[in-house]
Amino acid sequence: MARDKGPRRPRAETPRGFRDYFGAEVSERKAMLDTIAGVYHRYGFDPLETSAVETVEALGKFLPDVDRPNEGVFAWQEDDDWLALRYDLTAPLARVAAQYRNDLPNPYRRYAMGPVWRNEKPGPGRFRQFYQCDADTVGAASVAADAEICAMLADALEEVGIPRGDYVVRVNNRKVLNGVMEAAGILDPADPDRFAQERGIVLRAIDKLDRLGPDGVRALLGEGRLDESGDFTSGAGLAGAQADTVLAFMAARGATGAETVARLRDLAGASRIGSEGVDELERIAELLDAQGYGPDRIVVDPSVVRGLGYYTGPVFEAELTFEITDEKGRPRQFGSVAGGGRYDDLVKRFTGQAVPATGVSVGVDRLLAALRAKGRMHTDTRGPVVVTVMDRDRMADYQAMATELRRAGIRAEVYLGNPKNFGNQLKYADRRNSPLAVIQGSAEAARGVVQIKDLVLGAKIAAEASHEEWKAQPAQTEVPRGELVAAVRRLLERT
Amino acid sequence: MARDKGPRRPRAETPRGFRDYFGAEVSERKAMLDTIAGVYHRYGFDPLETSAVETVEALGKFLPDVDRPNEGVFAWQEDDDWLALRYDLTAPLARVAAQYRNDLPNPYRRYAMGPVWRNEKPGPGRFRQFYQCDADTVGAASVAADAEICAMLADALEEVGIPRGDYVVRVNNRKVLNGVMEAAGILDPADPDRFAQERGIVLRAIDKLDRLGPDGVRALLGEGRLDESGDFTSGAGLAGAQADTVLAFMAARGATGAETVARLRDLAGASRIGSEGVDELERIAELLDAQGYGPDRIVVDPSVVRGLGYYTGPVFEAELTFEITDEKGRPRQFGSVAGGGRYDDLVKRFTGQAVPATGVSVGVDRLLAALRAKGRMHTDTRGPVVVTVMDRDRMADYQAMATELRRAGIRAEVYLGNPKNFGNQLKYADRRNSPLAVIQGSAEAARGVVQIKDLVLGAKIAAEASHEEWKAQPAQTEVPRGELVAAVRRLLERT
Repeated sequence: MARDKGPRRPRAETPRGFRDYFGAEVSERKAMLDTIAGVYHRYGFDPLETSAVETVEALGKFLPDVDRPNEGVFAWQEDDDWLALRYDLTAPLARVAAQYRNDLPNPYRRYAMGPVWRNEKPGPGRFRQFYQCDADTVGAASVAADAEICAMLADALEEVGIPRGDYVVRVNNRKVLNGVMEAAGILDPADPDRFAQERGIVLRAIDKLDRLGPDGVRALLGEGRLDESGDFTSGAGLAGAQADTVLAFMAARGATGAETVARLRDLAGASRIGSEGVDELERIAELLDAQGYGPDRIVVDPSVVRGLGYYTGPVFEAELTFEITDEKGRPRQFGSVAGGGRYDDLVKRFTGQAVPATGVSVGVDRLLAALRAKGRMHTDTRGPVVVTVMDRDRMADYQAMATELRRAGIRAEVYLGNPKNFGNQLKYADRRNSPLAVIQGSAEAARGVVQIKDLVLGAKIAAEASHEEWKAQPAQTEVPRGELVAAVRRLLERT
Repeated sequence: MARDKGPRRPRAETPRGFRDYFGAEVSERKAMLDTIAGVYHRYGFDPLETSAVETVEALGKFLPDVDRPNEGVFAWQEDDDWLALRYDLTAPLARVAAQYRNDLPNPYRRYAMGPVWRNEKPGPGRFRQFYQCDADTVGAASVAADAEICAMLADALEEVGIPRGDYVVRVNNRKVLNGVMEAAGILDPADPDRFAQERGIVLRAIDKLDRLGPDGVRALLGEGRLDESGDFTSGAGLAGAQADTVLAFMAARGATGAETVARLRDLAGASRIGSEGVDELERIAELLDAQGYGPDRIVVDPSVVRGLGYYTGPVFEAELTFEITDEKGRPRQFGSVAGGGRYDDLVKRFTGQAVPATGVSVGVDRLLAALRAKGRMHTDTRGPVVVTVMDRDRMADYQAMATELRRAGIRAEVYLGNPKNFGNQLKYADRRNSPLAVIQGSAEAARGVVQIKDLVLGAKIAAEASHEEWKAQPAQTEVPRGELVAAVRRLLERT
């Protein structure tokens, strides 16, 4: 046992960048995840839960900001291995798909939900542990799998409470982007590793369009960019004409899907890979149209690239299109809540054999925040019925009352703090958001009755009612002890 | 991106002692946790989710086997702090109770469920990440809080599917044990830190009674014990008469609760703390009796001590009393699935002020194993309806069929692997445990019909039926395309 004689006590604090979630925060997230899991399940996906800990070599290095020193993961050494907390749910899936490749159904459709960890500089609303909720299909080369993931994402958003019109799933294709890179002279099909660093910078720059605007992106495509804090981010070193090609690509979205596809064919169709990518986009749009997912829900949009380096084909992103008011009272678009794409090379890392795969990851905490901002969370925050303790020696009687209520399915508890101050008991009930308090002193016990205090009505009367109203509708009722459960049930239905 | 040109590929393996959970393993655990959460909620407990990562100083050193070198946690350094994965859910609760002490309701009732991590030597069925599911009351000094936790534990076990008679919650009190330690001369109330190491060894020895038997415990109370592997565990160094006192305590359970309490009073009643403990046990038994939790469900049993060093009062343990057949075909008692107790000093570590607390932790994986052993898990393991792909160019039609089925609430998917070999598609459906396959070639499409193949019936017919039966009840039906959903629903109801 630790001795607490000395002056040094442990600090009661979460580590920097971590936080605790209480009550409704937990149950609201659970309700949302249950709904999304229901959609994934209906699409034929099976649950998978991998452990939080993986070997560093199995995780690989695929975080968007690979240029940072600690590489973004929490890691520690064990014997000859380095172990780390998973930073997403895709890397563990790739490991599972390789490890169990002879036992899993093929294609393998799985969903997974749980916390992931990033060893990043925490900021306001930016935590180092957060939830993801993913669905992936491993072993399906057809873009029908990508189209299906986009449709499922739209369904999931609607089912958790984002109405049609308040979101859009935007689809693009890395192959088109590669075609554009060829056109801009920073991808050589004969030597695919050349210019890899430049392309990485271009990818990350495009991904920051929302945040930095076209000028910021242009700076990153060129020499680099000095941000407000004075930090300088090195650019890709592209010449003006090269940067123009990339920027034209990002702005290629037309009024209709057909128009967008035509523009993309102009920009990237000369390259084999670019042309293939445009074909795939066209096919995805056709498949979605045939299932009734029109451009009001899912659109082709060349500005979507997704920062992660491992995508190889279609990429997609779900954006909420309504405005919310930020902490400073300013209106702003809510932005991205989910994203994904095709990553045909992740399993190959382990096995040497190409395995096509595609999937989506929902940013659970952002989507929850959106639902709260829209007033779409309807959790029951009502607290338990509190049986107060008037007479400490009759605890057994009070516990028997709570037991009876619970047997009838009513959430109930006995006040278990120090019962001396009755006011504290009512304050506690109030703090717990209790609808009713049950009271039985020795006088009531002798007469075989209990008092039931309606705390919701009591608060309302205290706030609003005149003296006459107060008398007409008392917030406290007396019932025979034998009728406790029936009376509580009746009162709960009223509140 | 990692290059996979070189010979060195990452190994597709979980780290040693970790594992993956697939499909029904995940959904069965979720169903059980949801049920337990429902019971905890009905008792007035609110959910809390802390992060997996804590500072090492906040966690403290309370693992049962504190004598091991790496101290049982996964830890790493960050700047001046050491961070670690939580090893249980109680230490984080103590931190939360201290950190938010001015904001939380008092008493604070919370439940928590999630993985915890132990940096231990893995063994068969022994993993380094596992689930716990806890409920605790912080701020309630009365043993009414302990009695309530025991009743709730009994309710939770019954609600997940352990019938009355197949479990027992055994209750003891550390204060009684301390009284016995006084009687045995290894606890001096005037100098409570003296003999602390000996008492630790005694505690752990008693906790191993199930595994080692009385002789093994006696060896650990005395000079020490050599186990089968040749490892020597140092003992507490007690003389024969001292050990006799401890062993008499462990064997003090009588035929009735009253008899047990009387024996305990004989053994420990001479010490102030021992007498207090016996009073508390008597009180808990009374409270539980009054609520109808008799000795068929909750009993006083002095052999329960719980290994953890931080308990200060009542301790309890839920044991499953039925026999199961182990991996080697031998019958054995299932044993403990939950435990807990009162730990009045854990919050004090942070604040310096004593805060009474009591709670229980359910060993989720053991309880799940028990339910499976008893055949009490009834998860729907039926796979999705699989829409097969006869004609690759008509993918949009097949996806539309799956979409219609899902809209009707039916789990369905299109086969997304390579469609060339139709046999592989049916093998896939079989592997997914699909009840039905939908088939539409170009001939059927031209006629506006679909075939529905009953895979369950098909397998049964193949295995059992005579030729006549096979003709009378074909496993494949043809229906108009417009009646697909209705026909599938009808067939699913039949299977």
